[in-house]
Amino acid sequence: MNILFQHVTAVTMDAASPVLRDVWVSTRGARIDSVGPERPQGDFDRVIDCTGKVMIPGFVNAHTHLPMVLMRGYGGGCGLQTWLHDYIFPAEARLDSRAVAAGTALGLAEMIAAGVTCTADMYMHTGTVARTVLESGISANLSCGGVYFGAAADFSPEACGDCRSQLRLTEEWHGAGDGQILVDASIHAEYTSCAPLWEWMADFAVSRGLGMHVHISETRREHAESLERNGLTPIQALDRYGVWDCGRSLAAHCVYTTPEDWAVMAEKNVSCVHNPWSNLKLGSGVAPTPAMLRAGVNVALGSDGMSSHNSADLFSDIKLAACLPCGTQQDPMAMGAWEALSMATAGGARALGRDSGVIAAGKTADLLLVDFTAPNLTPCHDEVENLVYAAHSSNIEMNMARGQVIYEKGEFLTLDLERIRAEVKDYALPLVFPNP
Amino acid sequence: MNILFQHVTAVTMDAASPVLRDVWVSTRGARIDSVGPERPQGDFDRVIDCTGKVMIPGFVNAHTHLPMVLMRGYGGGCGLQTWLHDYIFPAEARLDSRAVAAGTALGLAEMIAAGVTCTADMYMHTGTVARTVLESGISANLSCGGVYFGAAADFSPEACGDCRSQLRLTEEWHGAGDGQILVDASIHAEYTSCAPLWEWMADFAVSRGLGMHVHISETRREHAESLERNGLTPIQALDRYGVWDCGRSLAAHCVYTTPEDWAVMAEKNVSCVHNPWSNLKLGSGVAPTPAMLRAGVNVALGSDGMSSHNSADLFSDIKLAACLPCGTQQDPMAMGAWEALSMATAGGARALGRDSGVIAAGKTADLLLVDFTAPNLTPCHDEVENLVYAAHSSNIEMNMARGQVIYEKGEFLTLDLERIRAEVKDYALPLVFPNP
Repeated sequence: MNILFQHVTAVTMDAASPVLRDVWVSTRGARIDSVGPERPQGDFDRVIDCTGKVMIPGFVNAHTHLPMVLMRGYGGGCGLQTWLHDYIFPAEARLDSRAVAAGTALGLAEMIAAGVTCTADMYMHTGTVARTVLESGISANLSCGGVYFGAAADFSPEACGDCRSQLRLTEEWHGAGDGQILVDASIHAEYTSCAPLWEWMADFAVSRGLGMHVHISETRREHAESLERNGLTPIQALDRYGVWDCGRSLAAHCVYTTPEDWAVMAEKNVSCVHNPWSNLKLGSGVAPTPAMLRAGVNVALGSDGMSSHNSADLFSDIKLAACLPCGTQQDPMAMGAWEALSMATAGGARALGRDSGVIAAGKTADLLLVDFTAPNLTPCHDEVENLVYAAHSSNIEMNMARGQVIYEKGEFLTLDLERIRAEVKDYALPLVFPNP
Repeated sequence: MNILFQHVTAVTMDAASPVLRDVWVSTRGARIDSVGPERPQGDFDRVIDCTGKVMIPGFVNAHTHLPMVLMRGYGGGCGLQTWLHDYIFPAEARLDSRAVAAGTALGLAEMIAAGVTCTADMYMHTGTVARTVLESGISANLSCGGVYFGAAADFSPEACGDCRSQLRLTEEWHGAGDGQILVDASIHAEYTSCAPLWEWMADFAVSRGLGMHVHISETRREHAESLERNGLTPIQALDRYGVWDCGRSLAAHCVYTTPEDWAVMAEKNVSCVHNPWSNLKLGSGVAPTPAMLRAGVNVALGSDGMSSHNSADLFSDIKLAACLPCGTQQDPMAMGAWEALSMATAGGARALGRDSGVIAAGKTADLLLVDFTAPNLTPCHDEVENLVYAAHSSNIEMNMARGQVIYEKGEFLTLDLERIRAEVKDYALPLVFPNP
């Protein structure tokens, strides 16, 4: 499909030309073909009038666990350990591939309606997640979150189930759909594995040209225990084994990272994936994002799993990323609107090794149209202010991923919502929660 | 209109029976007539099937400045003093009654779509605000935010414009619409007035049977300056002049209040109106709501003016009220979902002296229906968890205020949205922002 958008107000996320007014934007296949003041030549399958709307790049949800949407609100109101051990882990143990497919599809529906065009997901049954993502039309970096609880001396990659999963996932799915699916190497976290797995995963990422996805310094306890165990922070402990040497890594959370960590991250292109809602709801804390940005760290934005905060309304994540540093540092200038919006677009794309996140010719056509005639976006003194502080996902009128309109005016064009609802209700929930 | 709701799942906000399932709820005029497992006797003008929906009390937005929606996003990105002095105050100086009516109507549209059925508003041209609120169908406690910058010795209520406004507003509007409009006495803040105004306003509230609405300890500076000026916190300085003696007061913000303040508040029924988004965005800080609740203070919830954070999606305010204490105190149990939802319903109603905020026979019929079939509310392990952490305003299918359906499936039934948009665009904005 070649699509022409006319009368476009575009918040490009390119700081050199942040807002373009009354321009034409055309797409050809999966790419943006032109952006400019003149109507481009050629025939188009569809012309979309963007009067009253604002075009922005699609959102990148850079850290989530899609199938966990099945546990949304399950065990809420408990402390963290009770929640994990009495609710989440037993439910996860009952998941099968069909339930994971249903949960993934439901999570994708919510994310697509919220403007997500690209995500980084870490979960089990990862091949099933990949298949479901491929059908949905969005892009994803997938990882299986390697853990190893055995003795370091006993480690062998052939015997390690998560190494085998990483290998199989990479061979089956890396680059699928003309790059729609990328596989990242992955270590679940410092505290759920040990050095031999880190070394193997680091080598694997470099040899296969993969990125790396790890949970880092999410809680005070995790951070402190790494200092005790390794004499180093999680970032630095993993760095000693080459985990960040692949050239593009996602470090999810980073609540307790230090200036020394940020220096490593800036040098080795380790992006912080900030999950502000999850960090609040689970009592983890507030990540020092302004300091990380000043230290040259790329910051992306994630919703975390939908059982952690418990939604994926990316506009809300952006707003919290913008406001939380201001309130906790008692400085209304601590984080700007543009910086927060960048986390969910250009910053996220960089973190995932994608060329989306910016509206410019040649980029992947991941584009949203936001209805600026809604009461909550009226008046508009500044498009970026309204997007960051006033918009919510119901203002998203169209979601285009890789040049394909996948959601428009409340309708899903690649997902069958009725089928997903039925599969969740009739199959996945009875399986995972047999005694409600 | 007498309306019957069948197959109702009701989150009542009555802790004795928090969630009712498959009950009937009927309304008669402005009141809830019955709630129970049996179909009530009588004829009904309409029967509404609530399968797949959840009924909750309408939201009380207990602190806002409706007409400020006209300045949404205006001057964003500046420091507080620049924003106020270079942007907000000059714009406000150009407002007239017609512009205030347009802004009020626009703000009401956003709030009604977000489930607000009752609000406490403080602004100029208050009679105009009252007239617009009356037409919209929601209830409101209105106040004009008395200031007095003259010398204390020169104060005379006859010469003080804000005393005259308070008097006129009370006589014209208090109790209008069978109690739909209540007038509260009001002092803008400790730092914008002095003892003679406080004494006059305190006496006026007691003699007329009004509540009281004041900004309190919003910023560290305000709190510290009151300590310097009065040797007392703002709560205690005003208490010395009887400001809280009327028996029902709204103290907006309370970010820097102390345990001694909370003792006064608990004793004199001074509700904290927590404005978490505004306090974050403007760099004010984080109010100690868990400690206030433990001290017996009633806590309500407010959006603040829509130029302060910049929206009125009450679900988002509730979620932040629930999550912010957990993250900043690093304790996932610091605030519960039920407590946060109470702030926006039962707590708000108590703060405003209203009998709404709870679903029970005899209460004012301020009721919302939330669509629980939406992807972002699927699955539902716990209605309260989903409402607090996963819902957003687009999930509100129906807003009933005082027994009248005022919003349903995206349509406004008391407001003419096209007329409001035109009035904002063609009259209010050109007047208030003559040189954009």
